[in-house]
Amino acid sequence: MKRSATLTIGIDLGGTQIKGGLCDDQHGAIVWHSTDTQAGGGVDHVIRRIVALIDELVRRAGVKKGQIRGVGIGAPGPLSVAAGVIHSAPNLPGWVNVPLRQLVAEATGLPVVVENDANAAAYGEFVAGAGRQAHSLVLLTLGTGIGGGIVLEGRLWRGADDAAGEIGHMVIAPDGRPCSCGQQGCLERYASASAVAELFIEAARAGAQTLLREQIAGGAAIDAREVLRAGDQGCPLAVRIWEQTCRRLAQACVNLERVLSPELVLLGGGLAQAGERLLHPVRRHFLELRWKLTPGRTRIELATLGTQAGFIGAAALAARRGRGGSTGRARRSPDG
Amino acid sequence: MKRSATLTIGIDLGGTQIKGGLCDDQHGAIVWHSTDTQAGGGVDHVIRRIVALIDELVRRAGVKKGQIRGVGIGAPGPLSVAAGVIHSAPNLPGWVNVPLRQLVAEATGLPVVVENDANAAAYGEFVAGAGRQAHSLVLLTLGTGIGGGIVLEGRLWRGADDAAGEIGHMVIAPDGRPCSCGQQGCLERYASASAVAELFIEAARAGAQTLLREQIAGGAAIDAREVLRAGDQGCPLAVRIWEQTCRRLAQACVNLERVLSPELVLLGGGLAQAGERLLHPVRRHFLELRWKLTPGRTRIELATLGTQAGFIGAAALAARRGRGGSTGRARRSPDG
Repeated sequence: MKRSATLTIGIDLGGTQIKGGLCDDQHGAIVWHSTDTQAGGGVDHVIRRIVALIDELVRRAGVKKGQIRGVGIGAPGPLSVAAGVIHSAPNLPGWVNVPLRQLVAEATGLPVVVENDANAAAYGEFVAGAGRQAHSLVLLTLGTGIGGGIVLEGRLWRGADDAAGEIGHMVIAPDGRPCSCGQQGCLERYASASAVAELFIEAARAGAQTLLREQIAGGAAIDAREVLRAGDQGCPLAVRIWEQTCRRLAQACVNLERVLSPELVLLGGGLAQAGERLLHPVRRHFLELRWKLTPGRTRIELATLGTQAGFIGAAALAARRGRGGSTGRARRSPDG
Repeated sequence: MKRSATLTIGIDLGGTQIKGGLCDDQHGAIVWHSTDTQAGGGVDHVIRRIVALIDELVRRAGVKKGQIRGVGIGAPGPLSVAAGVIHSAPNLPGWVNVPLRQLVAEATGLPVVVENDANAAAYGEFVAGAGRQAHSLVLLTLGTGIGGGIVLEGRLWRGADDAAGEIGHMVIAPDGRPCSCGQQGCLERYASASAVAELFIEAARAGAQTLLREQIAGGAAIDAREVLRAGDQGCPLAVRIWEQTCRRLAQACVNLERVLSPELVLLGGGLAQAGERLLHPVRRHFLELRWKLTPGRTRIELATLGTQAGFIGAAALAARRGRGGSTGRARRSPDG
């Protein structure tokens, strides 16, 4: 095949699926593929599945492995980007201080970079998605939890311990709902997909009027998608919960504007599949809640790469590393 | 005098006072001086007072004006750093779209940079104060309001519209106390020096038990310093208000750690004159409120430059500009 010489592979390692893509230097995925993680099989098994996926991508693209400049892996954390080590991962049993970079590099013979999964997705949206024209953005991934990634002037901001961008654990309500992280009042306890379902079920059980009364009484599992659908059908509780979710997200956007003033806040992840039914009310609450001192420059948009953001960003990070770029790690000198 | 060739002047323009210092390239102030702003005299009058202060600093240092590499001015905003224009300033009547950089440059013949005052103070702490060893920090200036400045890898982060770092207007309580900015529940409505006094007086008037009952009943003005002193003397209300202030500050520190994970959060401004009586309870609440997932790397410390931080930082920014450094403005290229 005729393609640019800079080919990289991006991998998005999740608890359920491993997604991968082989990308060119325009950050387009030439081929992509996914496979079950089979996390229960343990660390070595999952590493073998990552390596097999890399081989499969090379085969499907019809290129030689020697043409691949490097591999980027977006992984759950906490992790160390500099060391390429996963310290722990709630959805990957047995993953404690796993030297992911070294293991995959040894198995493939390719240079590997490891990145926080939400950071990789944010970088993907920056290079190839909704943030293509922006200088700075924050991505919120609204799923079971809420992840986040921050790109400032073209670089991921990872913070002192690679733990920056944890927007889901911004405290938005003092002494609020307890979070599994040990804090109270975290954003993700109010505005993740699971929080939407949980708040809905709690209120319904407490007697709030809802079209889903029978399902709730029958103990059926209700997810955010069903809450949204019930709202479309006029369920007053679903409408109220959804509005509240959008308002809490807007409050987080106000805080991001006040602290970072990014050009963009992008809404991604499962909940963002609601599209404009999410975007429009979040924007409406944002305009109502934000200060009136300046018009402000922060815009709220939907992410556009969907589930490809993670591997596209990971591939782009591998390409950047290949060009000799720094990792965005600490640089002390105030050199301008 | 024998000194390094890189001499710059920093000016901290406030509503009441103009402070200035002539600094060397080690960011030490060789001489410093301050003067009344006389803001009521209007824009031209204040500009003349800034220029006179610059001349006075040159005279006191015993150097020639030609030896001064440039002038940095920390000013209230909203303002544009790139244009050097103050868009408005609540404490400087008549200041609307004032081209401060141009006016001072024309009057002095020196290159001038203009910076947000809290940013200048944060940069001062970074180059010469409590942040000398850090790569990243956030400074909170706890005064009548709460200002903030963010230094990441040696550069001020100003955001898309030079309005980043407004930590005082982070919303920490949904539907909370109304703020003059138009938001509700801003941090500065709970943890600024004026909020401490206000919350104390409100609670006392509502019947809370306090040693300052007579002063309150007599309509005496109570400030944060007196609340702190009353607490030292065992006033139960003062103790409660102070604890609550420290807890709200700690909550803001948690959010800064989650979003940015800076090495340092520095507490400065008038309220920080309380020293360890502020620092220790803020740290205690921080450890209680922050997540338990990772040990974390963000430390909370007191700022050390006091009222000199602003002009020292402004002088350092002038020196940096003089070396050809960028302003930290938007750079699109993801070049590493």
